[in-house]
Amino acid sequence: MAEKRTELSDLGEFGIIERIKNSTKNKHKSTLEGIGDDAAIIDVKDKQLLVSTDMLLEGVHFDLSYMPLAHLGYKAVAVNVSDIAAMNGVPTQITVNIGLSNRFSLEAVDTLYQGILKACEDFKVDLVGGDTSSSASGLVLSITALGQVDKKSVVKRSGAKKGDIICVTGDLGAAYLGLQVLEREKQVFLSNPEMQPQLDKYDYIVQRQLKPSARMDIIHELAELKLVPSSMIDISDGLASELMHLAKSSKIGVQIYEDKLPIDKQTYDTGYELGIDSTTAALNGGEDYELLFTINQDDYEKLKNHSDIHFIGYVKEFSEGCKMVTKQENLIDIKAQGWNHYKKD
Amino acid sequence: MAEKRTELSDLGEFGIIERIKNSTKNKHKSTLEGIGDDAAIIDVKDKQLLVSTDMLLEGVHFDLSYMPLAHLGYKAVAVNVSDIAAMNGVPTQITVNIGLSNRFSLEAVDTLYQGILKACEDFKVDLVGGDTSSSASGLVLSITALGQVDKKSVVKRSGAKKGDIICVTGDLGAAYLGLQVLEREKQVFLSNPEMQPQLDKYDYIVQRQLKPSARMDIIHELAELKLVPSSMIDISDGLASELMHLAKSSKIGVQIYEDKLPIDKQTYDTGYELGIDSTTAALNGGEDYELLFTINQDDYEKLKNHSDIHFIGYVKEFSEGCKMVTKQENLIDIKAQGWNHYKKD
Repeated sequence: MAEKRTELSDLGEFGIIERIKNSTKNKHKSTLEGIGDDAAIIDVKDKQLLVSTDMLLEGVHFDLSYMPLAHLGYKAVAVNVSDIAAMNGVPTQITVNIGLSNRFSLEAVDTLYQGILKACEDFKVDLVGGDTSSSASGLVLSITALGQVDKKSVVKRSGAKKGDIICVTGDLGAAYLGLQVLEREKQVFLSNPEMQPQLDKYDYIVQRQLKPSARMDIIHELAELKLVPSSMIDISDGLASELMHLAKSSKIGVQIYEDKLPIDKQTYDTGYELGIDSTTAALNGGEDYELLFTINQDDYEKLKNHSDIHFIGYVKEFSEGCKMVTKQENLIDIKAQGWNHYKKD
Repeated sequence: MAEKRTELSDLGEFGIIERIKNSTKNKHKSTLEGIGDDAAIIDVKDKQLLVSTDMLLEGVHFDLSYMPLAHLGYKAVAVNVSDIAAMNGVPTQITVNIGLSNRFSLEAVDTLYQGILKACEDFKVDLVGGDTSSSASGLVLSITALGQVDKKSVVKRSGAKKGDIICVTGDLGAAYLGLQVLEREKQVFLSNPEMQPQLDKYDYIVQRQLKPSARMDIIHELAELKLVPSSMIDISDGLASELMHLAKSSKIGVQIYEDKLPIDKQTYDTGYELGIDSTTAALNGGEDYELLFTINQDDYEKLKNHSDIHFIGYVKEFSEGCKMVTKQENLIDIKAQGWNHYKKD
């Protein structure tokens, strides 16, 4: 039986908006009006409002040949929620703009929104607006997230002080190695479509690439512990790049220890298999969406037994630069390679 | 002398963000933090917050062969500000996501931002965040605007009451005819590149298409007059489509009069020249970004001498539908054609 395919033209833009509106249910009292007017209306009292926005473009940020649409929708929301988390805030609303070429059916849009709405459930955000239009080529997703934070709890990149402890949540490098595995399977598939992808032994790292989480759990735990980090950023471009952002904004130096970097066994094993150093993946791979933050040494007691927060180094003077002590006990400069989408070919 | 061309790869994403950050200056006390952290921080007290978002895609919403980049940047901001105006709000901040293929140079990005920043000046909004990345093909612009409104002044689409007077600002249909002229000149140019475009006699309608304004002047005047419309929407898809939005949201009918529709002489003359009925352009052309609103009859005195607000009809019972009295005094149904970007070819 052929899969159902409904053309977007059968509904038109208003039909699509109506459909999305009917599948959302608001979770926040502050959402006074969501989808359906010229703008959403949000009530804010005694709080500071956070705004974060990101755009994902087909062929640049994702490849639909291995990124299922539902995962893409989920990831696009998680990425923005992660930015709100990185300010120590709680996300409250998102808007979603989507551009689709006519190779996408209504069922494809529904699948994409399933992922978006699942993430809205998981991260407790209200979908309050957006725009769906056709695109001349490919899929474009642009999401803006709003969040709230108490004035005294907001954490910027700029507050790290000499002597602070550098902390990282979760583990690093997995999303990057997951991407390498997916790329390899795609090449195998292209050269021999009969081959089924063998992904079982890479389940964790593939999941990290396809369906990253935003660490709202950590934000809520920090609030319970009444611990406000001195600086924070989320790891989207790789640990090295984010450390240098903190260093620049806080006018500090950092020293981290290679043997303290949290790296999952599957990341390490796959790196070995593919000839990619797992430390390099952690430093420069990106897309981990973990939190990198600094705390005053007095706060160490509160976190020292936390199973998912890792202490990777110390804040130094600005003049000392950004350094890593390697496993061989050499002191090397950290260089931010991150992603440069404008690479010349 | 060759025009200067700097590749985007020479700066990278962070370089571009830095450049944009350095060219913005915040205008609102509520902008606590703008560009440069994971999210912008906005202070809000005793107000309701408005959020509006729009995406413009090359080949769908604009054609760079006649849309200069600076105008495109300006228009993208104006369109979002217009949505905030349509809620009777004042815009305060915007975020801008841009995707660019490598056929664009740094100078092109600068030109685009010149238009964006000019609009930020004109509409008094702070640019507080965004994302610039490469795109596999074409230019993508996604903008989110935030605005504020007093709780008692917010105007939705849903408040129109039977007997209210229907008002329209400015004039209608010009942007659509401007587009037709630009399309025609493009075809002439493609068939004979030696021909210079003859646009002088179309200056007003071309300007309406390329550099639309958002009617913040009207919003400020309504505030001075202490007049809160009963319902409001901005005209992006054409008067017919917007009237039907008001009718549906407010559960009302409308009756408008063809001879009351505000149409500029240049729109009328160009319509005649091109064989396009100017009433059809006003009803279905779209992109005017004027305001359509309803007022209680008691408020008529306050507006009756306003040179740029036009009274085009009355709010009726829902059961009476949406009708127009033609110049020949026939009563016809209004049909929303608007834009359907998903047209089958």
